[in-house]
Amino acid sequence: MTQKNKVLLGIDPGFRYAGYGILRQEERRTVVADYGYLHLPQTKDLVERTGLFHEFFEKKIVDFSVTHLSLETPFLGKNTQTFLKLGYLRGILYLLSHKHSLVLSEFAPREVKQTVTGFGGASKEQLVTVVGRLFPKLPVQNKYDVTDALAITLCGLWTKKIDLSLKKP
Amino acid sequence: MTQKNKVLLGIDPGFRYAGYGILRQEERRTVVADYGYLHLPQTKDLVERTGLFHEFFEKKIVDFSVTHLSLETPFLGKNTQTFLKLGYLRGILYLLSHKHSLVLSEFAPREVKQTVTGFGGASKEQLVTVVGRLFPKLPVQNKYDVTDALAITLCGLWTKKIDLSLKKP
Repeated sequence: MTQKNKVLLGIDPGFRYAGYGILRQEERRTVVADYGYLHLPQTKDLVERTGLFHEFFEKKIVDFSVTHLSLETPFLGKNTQTFLKLGYLRGILYLLSHKHSLVLSEFAPREVKQTVTGFGGASKEQLVTVVGRLFPKLPVQNKYDVTDALAITLCGLWTKKIDLSLKKP
Repeated sequence: MTQKNKVLLGIDPGFRYAGYGILRQEERRTVVADYGYLHLPQTKDLVERTGLFHEFFEKKIVDFSVTHLSLETPFLGKNTQTFLKLGYLRGILYLLSHKHSLVLSEFAPREVKQTVTGFGGASKEQLVTVVGRLFPKLPVQNKYDVTDALAITLCGLWTKKIDLSLKKP
């Protein structure tokens, strides 16, 4: 078995903005290979946006030879339709994990904060500060969930979790 | 623009059993081209089952030259995780609609019963009876949601709905 570089993609999915971060683990350091967000215009219908989301992230996976995918576990908020639709995008990411044999890990929001800031009840501002310190060359990403995506990606890097894809649901 | 035959696929998705029906509209009649269910073994993880679901229904769409896809709108039951996971499969079907340019229609459970039996509060048994009368050559499909899938497919055939894929969500 050849040991290939670990390349982690973390995504904070949404039908308007989907933030993402890609970290590549090299011998002695971890580099940010890419980060940003996908903007899905509201003028397009959900079917089309689902297609664009799939296309965008499949290209990222292929271009960066991604090996690991990290996601946050969703929670049911006030809007059940938003929750359901988030499921659509997660389904697409499960499909991409399957197709490209990615190791999929999922983290509860509290776990992401705990891992990155050391405190599960950390505020969004704290998360932005810590992510900013870890990657000082990056411009401050306090919108479009790019910080969240980077934090989720870091979780995939740091947490020795059991590979979820081997566990029964 | 060439007028091609309308081929409707109706699916009642689930991570254990996913019922489906395929109806082809010919000049003066409608024929059942295929029906049945996909069984997703619980020994496989969700990622793999998502992949199998995608593969199975993409093959059906291609093999039968499907033009229309009908789904039931889900409702939030007792189990939020089941609801969310149903979203994964719906996301896959949205993706397939996008890729194969299918006309996607969605119907509320009440609307399906209303359309097929004439009564929105109809029981499951009534639905089985009516679907059985419409397609007398079919063996009675009272399990694995095949009847539901056929009823959803019929909705796509009978209901003059505005194409959802052209509507903003």
